[in-house]
Amino acid sequence: MTVPVAIVGASGYTGAELFRLLHAHPQVEIAGVYGKSSAGKRLADVYPQLHGISELVLEAADADAIAARAEIVFSALPHGESAQLCETLVARGRRVLDLSADFRLRDLAAHRAWYGDHHAPEMVGRAVYGLPELHRRELREATLVAVPGCYPTAAILAALPLVEAGLIGQPLVVDAKSGVSGAGRSPSLSTHFPEAAEGIRPYKIAGAHRHTPEIEQELARVAGAPVRITFTPHLVPMSRGILACVYGAARGDSGFHECLVERWRGEPFVTVLPLGTLPDTSFVRGSNRAHVAVAHDARAGVLVAMSAIDNLVKGASGQAVQCLNLMMGWPETTGLTAVAPFP
Amino acid sequence: MTVPVAIVGASGYTGAELFRLLHAHPQVEIAGVYGKSSAGKRLADVYPQLHGISELVLEAADADAIAARAEIVFSALPHGESAQLCETLVARGRRVLDLSADFRLRDLAAHRAWYGDHHAPEMVGRAVYGLPELHRRELREATLVAVPGCYPTAAILAALPLVEAGLIGQPLVVDAKSGVSGAGRSPSLSTHFPEAAEGIRPYKIAGAHRHTPEIEQELARVAGAPVRITFTPHLVPMSRGILACVYGAARGDSGFHECLVERWRGEPFVTVLPLGTLPDTSFVRGSNRAHVAVAHDARAGVLVAMSAIDNLVKGASGQAVQCLNLMMGWPETTGLTAVAPFP
Amino acid sequence: MTVPVAIVGASGYTGAELFRLLHAHPQVEIAGVYGKSSAGKRLADVYPQLHGISELVLEAADADAIAARAEIVFSALPHGESAQLCETLVARGRRVLDLSADFRLRDLAAHRAWYGDHHAPEMVGRAVYGLPELHRRELREATLVAVPGCYPTAAILAALPLVEAGLIGQPLVVDAKSGVSGAGRSPSLSTHFPEAAEGIRPYKIAGAHRHTPEIEQELARVAGAPVRITFTPHLVPMSRGILACVYGAARGDSGFHECLVERWRGEPFVTVLPLGTLPDTSFVRGSNRAHVAVAHDARAGVLVAMSAIDNLVKGASGQAVQCLNLMMGWPETTGLTAVAPFP
Amino acid sequence: MTVPVAIVGASGYTGAELFRLLHAHPQVEIAGVYGKSSAGKRLADVYPQLHGISELVLEAADADAIAARAEIVFSALPHGESAQLCETLVARGRRVLDLSADFRLRDLAAHRAWYGDHHAPEMVGRAVYGLPELHRRELREATLVAVPGCYPTAAILAALPLVEAGLIGQPLVVDAKSGVSGAGRSPSLSTHFPEAAEGIRPYKIAGAHRHTPEIEQELARVAGAPVRITFTPHLVPMSRGILACVYGAARGDSGFHECLVERWRGEPFVTVLPLGTLPDTSFVRGSNRAHVAVAHDARAGVLVAMSAIDNLVKGASGQAVQCLNLMMGWPETTGLTAVAPFP
Repeated sequence: MTVPVAIVGASGYTGAELFRLLHAHPQVEIAGVYGKSSAGKRLADVYPQLHGISELVLEAADADAIAARAEIVFSALPHGESAQLCETLVARGRRVLDLSADFRLRDLAAHRAWYGDHHAPEMVGRAVYGLPELHRRELREATLVAVPGCYPTAAILAALPLVEAGLIGQPLVVDAKSGVSGAGRSPSLSTHFPEAAEGIRPYKIAGAHRHTPEIEQELARVAGAPVRITFTPHLVPMSRGILACVYGAARGDSGFHECLVERWRGEPFVTVLPLGTLPDTSFVRGSNRAHVAVAHDARAGVLVAMSAIDNLVKGASGQAVQCLNLMMGWPETTGLTAVAPFP
Repeated sequence: MTVPVAIVGASGYTGAELFRLLHAHPQVEIAGVYGKSSAGKRLADVYPQLHGISELVLEAADADAIAARAEIVFSALPHGESAQLCETLVARGRRVLDLSADFRLRDLAAHRAWYGDHHAPEMVGRAVYGLPELHRRELREATLVAVPGCYPTAAILAALPLVEAGLIGQPLVVDAKSGVSGAGRSPSLSTHFPEAAEGIRPYKIAGAHRHTPEIEQELARVAGAPVRITFTPHLVPMSRGILACVYGAARGDSGFHECLVERWRGEPFVTVLPLGTLPDTSFVRGSNRAHVAVAHDARAGVLVAMSAIDNLVKGASGQAVQCLNLMMGWPETTGLTAVAPFP
Repeated sequence: MTVPVAIVGASGYTGAELFRLLHAHPQVEIAGVYGKSSAGKRLADVYPQLHGISELVLEAADADAIAARAEIVFSALPHGESAQLCETLVARGRRVLDLSADFRLRDLAAHRAWYGDHHAPEMVGRAVYGLPELHRRELREATLVAVPGCYPTAAILAALPLVEAGLIGQPLVVDAKSGVSGAGRSPSLSTHFPEAAEGIRPYKIAGAHRHTPEIEQELARVAGAPVRITFTPHLVPMSRGILACVYGAARGDSGFHECLVERWRGEPFVTVLPLGTLPDTSFVRGSNRAHVAVAHDARAGVLVAMSAIDNLVKGASGQAVQCLNLMMGWPETTGLTAVAPFP
Repeated sequence: MTVPVAIVGASGYTGAELFRLLHAHPQVEIAGVYGKSSAGKRLADVYPQLHGISELVLEAADADAIAARAEIVFSALPHGESAQLCETLVARGRRVLDLSADFRLRDLAAHRAWYGDHHAPEMVGRAVYGLPELHRRELREATLVAVPGCYPTAAILAALPLVEAGLIGQPLVVDAKSGVSGAGRSPSLSTHFPEAAEGIRPYKIAGAHRHTPEIEQELARVAGAPVRITFTPHLVPMSRGILACVYGAARGDSGFHECLVERWRGEPFVTVLPLGTLPDTSFVRGSNRAHVAVAHDARAGVLVAMSAIDNLVKGASGQAVQCLNLMMGWPETTGLTAVAPFP
């Protein structure tokens, strides 16, 4: 017996990645795929990798129709467009995993400052932030999951143990590098191949990127006090992957690596690399695994905490499936054990 | 109950890809991994994507030790080094899938002309050419499988139906383009990133590439007569993928697309694309699927048969697993149903 | 004393490349840059590589204003939009180099079949096809130059000597591979980084690409008879470069390499590579040079003529400057002697 | 009248880039090219972009032979191999620009700690650090120039004005990203295309990279006191370019951008980008220009100083030519005015 699930916003990259992962998931059946401008098209015409695999046709994202067909709904709609649909689906008794940013910030005022009006404000308090490494228990009972952003996932997995243990000072510098798929599937000049292929550039720096408050929110939870970061995202000429380097003053002389090892012990998808090995996004591409490491620069008195993830998997769709597994009481790794296809 | 398998030559790309696919295969257990210069190292130190996944250590490739531990052996050793080990393992009663070229050419004289001395010549006649689309029946009984080369797989899947049906004239022009992983994991100037990253180049053209006789051999089987090709391989700045374009004089005016559709109907891993859609290696990356198509240029009287595969999957390790499934009587798609992770 | 020149369509890649080359040209001065949607913007805001170098502002492309300021005009407008402006400028006594396709086809009926209505049909007969290696004498007197397409330049430089000498049979197969800048600067799904970065694909094959008649036209001139080709362009994950492989039946047994050497002897921008060396687009990137070679596959009876160029230089803007030099009686290599910046 | 120059170590990337730049330089003539393992080969066989351009043959690097032929010598030999040759050439009355690290550190003890024995220790004091923006006056008289490392050039141009003005606190975090050509032309696993093409990774972090003391040395000069940095270099899947982000506590509330503008006013190769524009290595590729910018993250109290350069040009060979121009009293931009060939 499989559980029928729906993917809303299936024509974007996170939607396609949800299809890939859920297609391989033994406990679910993809009951429907939904989009807006792509409604009416065969999914295989939108994603040619599905020729010979799926005959599904994208449908318009009507909440009642979705609720009639699926028990679980993944929403990969854009920010602002997702909240209302999620609210309606929850009201219909469905469990919802929202990959947009609509429910990530607990503070409604912060949400409005960074994203504008919220279209389902009363739901904000009901959403669980979908980082299993931090909120596993709440996720088991969740009705509405706010799947984290890609940069926050990377930054938090690198820095959280050190912040929690008081081993790193503030402000934190988060210098993160992302593959271009993080910008979504809509073409633009900055993601046009000849513009992006042979260069690296920062963008939305110094507090301009919306993932800033999300990182601060989650680190503040474990710090028990506000946390201030400066966040510099970069666009790197690769399709997938995020590498995050988090810098802060070292508190103490040792125990940094051990801190990570202890905190992430037993985590099925967080691997603290052996001493001397540094993260490389190549080795997590296509996988739900995060590679993390920390180094202590004793000369400068600085810690460098690092992580590598696949922005579309652990940074989005894989994390959503991991949350699903928790919500359903299935083994947390169900459908997510594939090895990264390197190279 | 799983079947114990061994991977010999596990430190190369096809070896690593075998590990990835067999790790996800529900009917087998990876009982040992073997190498030469890498013997004694942890596999995860050679392939960091395996940190947290595998504790296996590479061992020296001793035939008796392998035979003692595994029922099925995959050899991903280099050409010339594989034959003798395969022979010994077959003599020990093991079933062997050889990813080297040592048993691909049926004609021993041809083998010697292209590859030099053969180290297990009496085994040549016992090997089955591991292209399931052409040799499915023999593969079910095979003890020794010669897994095809990457270029031959691509070229044959594109051209074979047309050659078999007499719809295409000779000589055939095979213009094929490969990602750099086809060159293996040993660094060289031509595969050094700055040399390969922003250019495309042909190499070993006009009859110099060893896949030439292999393509001719298999096409000749279905043609019932010798086939002559000119083969131009290219190196393309991407890690994975082969795109093959096969040109020849059109025999007749129509029925070319239908010919492919009929010939490949029911094949689990060959998809004839809808008319108007052309193959793109992006959409088969990481997958065992081949995308094929044909176009008729009526002005010039030429057919263009095309295919896209992942050189490490359908062009090597995935095809080997497909053969394994046939040999063992398992459903042919076991362990191979993953959707291509695009992008 | 420098000659004032204007660049119309300066916001596209060929326009920017004209700026780069003309900026380094000792005999000219860039008197104005013109665009449509970009009019009013600083050129350095459209092309950040020009910060600190140029203060020019893009202006609307008014023929009278242009004629008032420049003696020579380069038009890099899109096909169909260029013809009328060129006609007006010629009528004002200006000499014009048109990088669009508007004047490339001599046969007006062919132009209409491939491109639709012509907006300056009476000018077609006055335009000189701007391939100096073939039309050097006429270019010296030209008022209006039709700068060749990128694929035709590559295909013709590889195949022309063999066609002219009767050493190659028909139909010709032209399998050509282009970097993504050939698609221009307007973003689209097919040129979106994650769609293009890790794959290769053919497009507009079997007589669908507009460069087909252009290649046939020029080869027919030297053949003295119609020439039929089948043309397969590909998109390759690199920004610049075209590699063309031209296949045809070998006529005779030898003399192919010598044929190229003889025909291109003394050409400043065509280098016949030493025997055993094959073209690679990496080595002409940023340069106006073409690398050509030919191989004879005696087994198959096929010739493989190859060339590598930079699509934006020898395939567009560099070739235009080479034509300019001829028109003005300057040394043909003026401003074009830079070595390719490899890697 | 041109000045004869020699390039020693011409078979590496910085050597080839010197050839490219000097070939375009109106005041010099390349009198000889020298190598070790490549001695006896035609330069065009080592660098195919030179077919049709240069007939030079690489010769063994004998100091007397070099001195007999050239007035100026560029040494692009590896660290440790360069010092002695430089000393001998200076003793022969030649002026030398050394692109190795042998003379970059003024403190011999520091040199020994980071690089091992010095083979010409008495010359250390005579070398001028070849960053014209900092040492223009001394360079005019220099006999021996230590051309800076690529990372130091990028980091210093971004951070120096702020350090000098006391606007940024310590420790500085230098998070820098380099293209793969920075690793040189010798193949290795980490620069093998499939290993480097789709991922980003840090390496030699936390004080392990030899450019650390070089950055500290030059910043300390303007600070008038020791400077401590933590340095994180990364390998990015592109051939050329360095992007450096330097972080430190903001001292004060404003004036940061103006500080850069003032400090670099009049510099021919340093462009402070307009407010709101951030550096991108794409726009300096192939050029000697540095793009710099600074942002103030008032929330976190952190400055982000950024720069983009081409590691082979402003980060190596172009900078060497700029130094040459100063040494010879030529206009500083001679031979270096080419616009970056974007894309």
